[in-house]
Amino acid sequence: MRISELSDRTGVTIPTLKYYLREGLLHAGEAQSATRAVYDDSHVERVRLVRTLIDVGRLSIERVREVVDALEHPPPSRHQLLGVVHEALRPHPAPEPPTTEAVDRVRALGAPGCDESLASTQLAQALSAAAAGGWVVEDATLRVWQRAMHAVAETDVAEELGSIAPADALRHAIVGTVLTDPVLLALRRVAQEALSAERFGSADPEDGVT
Amino acid sequence: MRISELSDRTGVTIPTLKYYLREGLLHAGEAQSATRAVYDDSHVERVRLVRTLIDVGRLSIERVREVVDALEHPPPSRHQLLGVVHEALRPHPAPEPPTTEAVDRVRALGAPGCDESLASTQLAQALSAAAAGGWVVEDATLRVWQRAMHAVAETDVAEELGSIAPADALRHAIVGTVLTDPVLLALRRVAQEALSAERFGSADPEDGVT
Repeated sequence: MRISELSDRTGVTIPTLKYYLREGLLHAGEAQSATRAVYDDSHVERVRLVRTLIDVGRLSIERVREVVDALEHPPPSRHQLLGVVHEALRPHPAPEPPTTEAVDRVRALGAPGCDESLASTQLAQALSAAAAGGWVVEDATLRVWQRAMHAVAETDVAEELGSIAPADALRHAIVGTVLTDPVLLALRRVAQEALSAERFGSADPEDGVT
Repeated sequence: MRISELSDRTGVTIPTLKYYLREGLLHAGEAQSATRAVYDDSHVERVRLVRTLIDVGRLSIERVREVVDALEHPPPSRHQLLGVVHEALRPHPAPEPPTTEAVDRVRALGAPGCDESLASTQLAQALSAAAAGGWVVEDATLRVWQRAMHAVAETDVAEELGSIAPADALRHAIVGTVLTDPVLLALRRVAQEALSAERFGSADPEDGVT
């Protein structure tokens, strides 16, 4: 297909597609002449991935390029793939280094040390940032959350990932995490609302009109 | 205290503090003369809240002003407070309206309709965005996640919220949610890593050196 059809099929304007080509987010089409190239379904799929990472994942162009590079040169093991995913989806701008206390709390949860795991580092940083904002997550609460997120991760790390090609497993893991983090946070709010209505009532006497 | 001491105590520069004053994010100090005002602990606390909302919550100045207005004029009921929190923490820019299918799925989970709950709307939007990105969350998975986030919300909507002043409950709910969403997402990644190591091994034979 020509670039105009690629634009129609993805809803992304031609200038933006040309920008993706220049920035290396989209692989070149097959050249037909000096000014003409043709594109195929792999380009449609790539453009959709880039839009998802930008629109939903709010990744920077730089970060999207890291993901694309990783997809083109996937690491050999299934487990290393996840490190690439966590690297691409790390918070930006980089948070402050975690406090020693937070690093110790992460170890106490049974997670790997921050020197060997980016996920552990992110957790220690999130705990440090919360504490700096005056919010210390109690140990009992943290363990409830750990169990809850373990149940979520059970659905993320599906057995079938072991039998698909590394690049597919990587795309699967990145897209899945980017697209479903907002679903989890929205479910938290829905549950807060239900529990709040249950505990405090949806129409307090002092409400006046509701 | 003078503005210079407020700056020292919060780590926020004087020009930024003046910007917060102009934008209405920080209440005025007590005027001592035409060019001099004094500040107290309520200003220190407010500046810290504003920094948390901006740095960790990534809220826009406009959104921070909504939170601050709500704190100064808290809604009368505990349950309405949560609506204000969810309003302030809604995703930005506003996502596409949810599909009818997503709206129906949220109802099927037992949540209120999207016409009466912002949390339900956010969930329907997140499900729609995931589906648009090629990621349909299966019903069985969604129910696992719903149970997991219900367990998290049990720790969020503490009984003691019923007995504190509305403005304090509001600040508590906003700061808690902003600061702990990243903790939950990091816990998801830590759990993914543990399960991935368990299922696929942290050192596959094809890894070569590890």
